[in-house]
Amino acid sequence: MSDSSAPADQVFLRRHNLAMVLRDLRDAGPRSRARIAADTGLNKATVSSLIAELAELGLVRDGVVERGGGVGRPGQTVEIDGRICGLGAEVNVDYVAVLVLDLRGEEVSYVRTPLDVPRLGVDSTLDELAAVIAAAVDDAAARGHDVAGITVGIPGMVETAPGVLRHAPNVGWREVRIADELAARLAGPAAIIRVDNDANLSALAEYTMGTSAGTLDLVYVTGETGVGGGVISDGVLLRGTEGYGGEIGHMPIGDPAHRCGCGKLGCWETSVGLAALLREVADPDDPVTDPSVDLEVRLAEIRRRAALGDGRTLRGIEAVGTGLGLGAAILVNLFNPRVIVLGGYFAELGEFFLPVMETELDKRVVAPARGGCRIELSSLGFTAACRGGAHVALDAVFTDPAAVGTAAADPVPTPIPGGMA
Amino acid sequence: MSDSSAPADQVFLRRHNLAMVLRDLRDAGPRSRARIAADTGLNKATVSSLIAELAELGLVRDGVVERGGGVGRPGQTVEIDGRICGLGAEVNVDYVAVLVLDLRGEEVSYVRTPLDVPRLGVDSTLDELAAVIAAAVDDAAARGHDVAGITVGIPGMVETAPGVLRHAPNVGWREVRIADELAARLAGPAAIIRVDNDANLSALAEYTMGTSAGTLDLVYVTGETGVGGGVISDGVLLRGTEGYGGEIGHMPIGDPAHRCGCGKLGCWETSVGLAALLREVADPDDPVTDPSVDLEVRLAEIRRRAALGDGRTLRGIEAVGTGLGLGAAILVNLFNPRVIVLGGYFAELGEFFLPVMETELDKRVVAPARGGCRIELSSLGFTAACRGGAHVALDAVFTDPAAVGTAAADPVPTPIPGGMA
Repeated sequence: MSDSSAPADQVFLRRHNLAMVLRDLRDAGPRSRARIAADTGLNKATVSSLIAELAELGLVRDGVVERGGGVGRPGQTVEIDGRICGLGAEVNVDYVAVLVLDLRGEEVSYVRTPLDVPRLGVDSTLDELAAVIAAAVDDAAARGHDVAGITVGIPGMVETAPGVLRHAPNVGWREVRIADELAARLAGPAAIIRVDNDANLSALAEYTMGTSAGTLDLVYVTGETGVGGGVISDGVLLRGTEGYGGEIGHMPIGDPAHRCGCGKLGCWETSVGLAALLREVADPDDPVTDPSVDLEVRLAEIRRRAALGDGRTLRGIEAVGTGLGLGAAILVNLFNPRVIVLGGYFAELGEFFLPVMETELDKRVVAPARGGCRIELSSLGFTAACRGGAHVALDAVFTDPAAVGTAAADPVPTPIPGGMA
Repeated sequence: MSDSSAPADQVFLRRHNLAMVLRDLRDAGPRSRARIAADTGLNKATVSSLIAELAELGLVRDGVVERGGGVGRPGQTVEIDGRICGLGAEVNVDYVAVLVLDLRGEEVSYVRTPLDVPRLGVDSTLDELAAVIAAAVDDAAARGHDVAGITVGIPGMVETAPGVLRHAPNVGWREVRIADELAARLAGPAAIIRVDNDANLSALAEYTMGTSAGTLDLVYVTGETGVGGGVISDGVLLRGTEGYGGEIGHMPIGDPAHRCGCGKLGCWETSVGLAALLREVADPDDPVTDPSVDLEVRLAEIRRRAALGDGRTLRGIEAVGTGLGLGAAILVNLFNPRVIVLGGYFAELGEFFLPVMETELDKRVVAPARGGCRIELSSLGFTAACRGGAHVALDAVFTDPAAVGTAAADPVPTPIPGGMA
């Protein structure tokens, strides 16, 4: 009954229907045009025409021929083509990482490069990141993939619209135009570059492909040098008015004697971040505190000591776990999530943190039975932010498949050698 | 193109269009059928038929005749009829209150009855509340109004679907089937009864009719005996997985020496709730601590002393304001709201709290310029929860106008004398 006969509406409707068909294939799996018509309520001629357009865009392809249970003639199925990819990148305190996912959700590549980011500074780090991204794009291209979009996660406060990092306390960056800086280092009609807070991207990854995928109220809490948070509330990422929501690491509930990377005293992350754990469990000359040793190796050593019952290690973990529980109780009181997913080093030592945290939650949460909240360890490990970034890039394709046409024509951002200097 | 020709879809479409027309009149004001057609994209014959149905339901009526700027013939305008009303009720520690708003958003009546709720207990309080509601409904009926829905706000954790209060620490209630209990006390085919957390309803009231109405990211913080919170995130009330979101009063950031109404030690409300203020500013025999004196009178006296520069009063307000700022900083770090609206007694003494809170926020918030957050004093005063409740009842009418037909046939819940005993 609404006046949708104007040409502009027809274009809108066509794009909407393209997206609907593509998402049906993602969510329901390979199927015949007849079943897509049944799923979506579109008529079969329209579905055929939409499939043809999606195939031309390189987003779907013919699948197996279905020979059903005797009813009707065998049907040619359609499936999502994995050619188009999304790339997620992450800059953290001591590494940069890049992960490529194809449109089917399958991992194409993952590279993590140790890097002393605070020491290297903005320009050299972005040079290095551009080189890693370009290598991943080239590698994907060599295997027949096109990267349609790039999302960079940063442990700091990001204004997503222009892709500007306002402040990343623990890497010491302020006011960096990440998207522009990176675009300048990647030549050609590059893929769209988005920038976001790393914990927000990790929360999206947990919500779309983690163990608790689909849980509408989910809080992600990651421990590295800093402590980051991402909040999914009723299925939507909570961003806040300027995109700075979820800054859980700076809740003023830590020991006021410790100064945080942000310059303030007593932030939560000074009590439960990686530095706090290392301070508790080891002397300064203990190899587990040596930043030149890979973090996962050091965490494995701490886990080994805890499993052996080492007193100092267990006391340290208990102290950090109590602090974790205190902050988690605030998160439960405020967000009433179904699940808190622990990421970063919290997940690596999670089996030891869990009982202490749960005791603390029982003491501190006001809702009956912790408001139905469980604590879970992330299965995505240190790849969560990259995965979330790749997901965001792919999500743009599922939202407007026709837009991929432009990028797909020449989607490969090739590096400018000069830009790497 | 979608298959919307099935009978079920026609019914759905009709209801959807009825709602669209009614909301157009609410948001854009009285107007001709032709302008409604232009606003909504519906054709004029459809609009006329929808208007006829809305008029029959008692939701719209003829307004003035427009004699426009020379173009076209003069048009009969349509406007919202104020006959249908929503009723918001509130149970708090020391009062029950009822407020009736008509469909045009105008206040029909407001009654606040002092009551020692923790002492009276569940049954007597609900008897009293039912009597106040019935009186308000009768009063509205005498003036030609029909109450289509009732929403009860309670300072506690509410499961909204069946309308059950799980726990209200400061009134001492647990597991009360408020909706059923109230329905049993109100005879006849009563209006729909909903139950919700009082601060959630207040947040909705601020979002829809407060000074910062329409601000998409808004946190409401109210101080009474308890401290309650309601969070609007990107225009949606944050409820959490079981409806217990926004329990800000029980953040463990208070003095661990004080036991909270919830039984735990060191909850935020033990540092900034009304009891904390009174403890700081007055001796136990000071009349401002006397619960039998109206709260607004006592707050006026405290305000007077502060304005006169009384040392103990100012120090007390500063101590509470610092605690308020500490908790507010957590809310800003987590939700990144555009505005924090202070309600309850916080608003009454707000002019004295603001500078201390702002200093604290500047010290504690990690986002630049407090993430763009301002603090505002509620202009709705102690009526906020009732207003929010009435809004929720009316919102149901704007969402599905046709459903009012049933209630409008006999919407008046008349009291059963026996139920009042």
